[in-house]
Amino acid sequence: MSQRSAGPELLRLIELMARLPGFGPRSARRAVLFLLKRKDQMLLPLADALRDAGEKIDRCEICGNFDTVQPCAVCQADGRDDGVICVVEDVPDLWALERGGSFRGRYHVLGGVLSAIDGIGPDDLHIGPLVGRVEAGGIREVILALNATVDGQTTAHYVADMLEGTGVEVTRLAHGVPVGGELDHLDDGTLAAALRSRRDVKR
Amino acid sequence: MSQRSAGPELLRLIELMARLPGFGPRSARRAVLFLLKRKDQMLLPLADALRDAGEKIDRCEICGNFDTVQPCAVCQADGRDDGVICVVEDVPDLWALERGGSFRGRYHVLGGVLSAIDGIGPDDLHIGPLVGRVEAGGIREVILALNATVDGQTTAHYVADMLEGTGVEVTRLAHGVPVGGELDHLDDGTLAAALRSRRDVKR
Repeated sequence: MSQRSAGPELLRLIELMARLPGFGPRSARRAVLFLLKRKDQMLLPLADALRDAGEKIDRCEICGNFDTVQPCAVCQADGRDDGVICVVEDVPDLWALERGGSFRGRYHVLGGVLSAIDGIGPDDLHIGPLVGRVEAGGIREVILALNATVDGQTTAHYVADMLEGTGVEVTRLAHGVPVGGELDHLDDGTLAAALRSRRDVKR
Repeated sequence: MSQRSAGPELLRLIELMARLPGFGPRSARRAVLFLLKRKDQMLLPLADALRDAGEKIDRCEICGNFDTVQPCAVCQADGRDDGVICVVEDVPDLWALERGGSFRGRYHVLGGVLSAIDGIGPDDLHIGPLVGRVEAGGIREVILALNATVDGQTTAHYVADMLEGTGVEVTRLAHGVPVGGELDHLDDGTLAAALRSRRDVKR
């Protein structure tokens, strides 16, 4: 829209919103209008929540999670197993595992995966600090919970190589049929992996 | 995610973002993470832009547009035709017409359309102020630029009825083939309307 029909404040807000993942110029305009119509219930609270998050939330210096405390709540929590580190690509994966609630060790966020196309090399990821944590001792097992994509698996192999010689056990998540999944809709690779890793029914 | 893996500030931000049109919990988490990773380039500027917009932008008391000045830039602009008012459902429609740049009169934003399902009656729309503007005199024509939906056309008829007796000419946008549109992809209603409103090739 032209400068005449909307002031610079509005254009700037729409321009910033349009950069959010999943948003474009049209959906950003719609969202901004939605916010302007709900100034007290949505727009100002969102401005405050953003500023609040920006001022208080930082990366945990140990694991790379986002939190308001340093180290983060997961790294600080009592009753978790200090001997197991679960390596994830990014924070949403950590959140997903925490939602599941079945992992009770510590985490390490790599901040991405190796990618020749995107030009992401080992130095762009937090692999060094992971090796440092393992070498500091007290770790029995490192679980590589990376995505089952080519880049994810390349990264898993690279991290496993880096940890060789530290004496720690390096594992990865099992491949198999998703719970609730139908065989007919699975790809051949998953089916083959599930068959290879078959288990005794009674276990 | 649980309270343990993310602080209340983060949960609040995700919860607010998830209420934006086009966003849900998953896309909101993705957007928040995107913002947290770009704190200085995105998160804090967005917080400032929202606060700025919230403090400075208000509805124009004449036409209902959003702007930082009162009345809005379009109502204030010189060289526009004060005798023609274009009635739109909401501000994005006004923006769309301004982007087009072919309308040089004034606007009136209804703030919605009549809808029995959503319980929106005439009193919920800015129809009274429109009649007031017309009755104040100096208006030759009111263009009803409402969506070609059932609710939009119902509203157009209602507004036209309200303006009856004021002596003003009430028009609506033409139906027809969109520029660049293919006949094969058009619905029958549009095709029939385009045929009815056919014009001499040389005009």
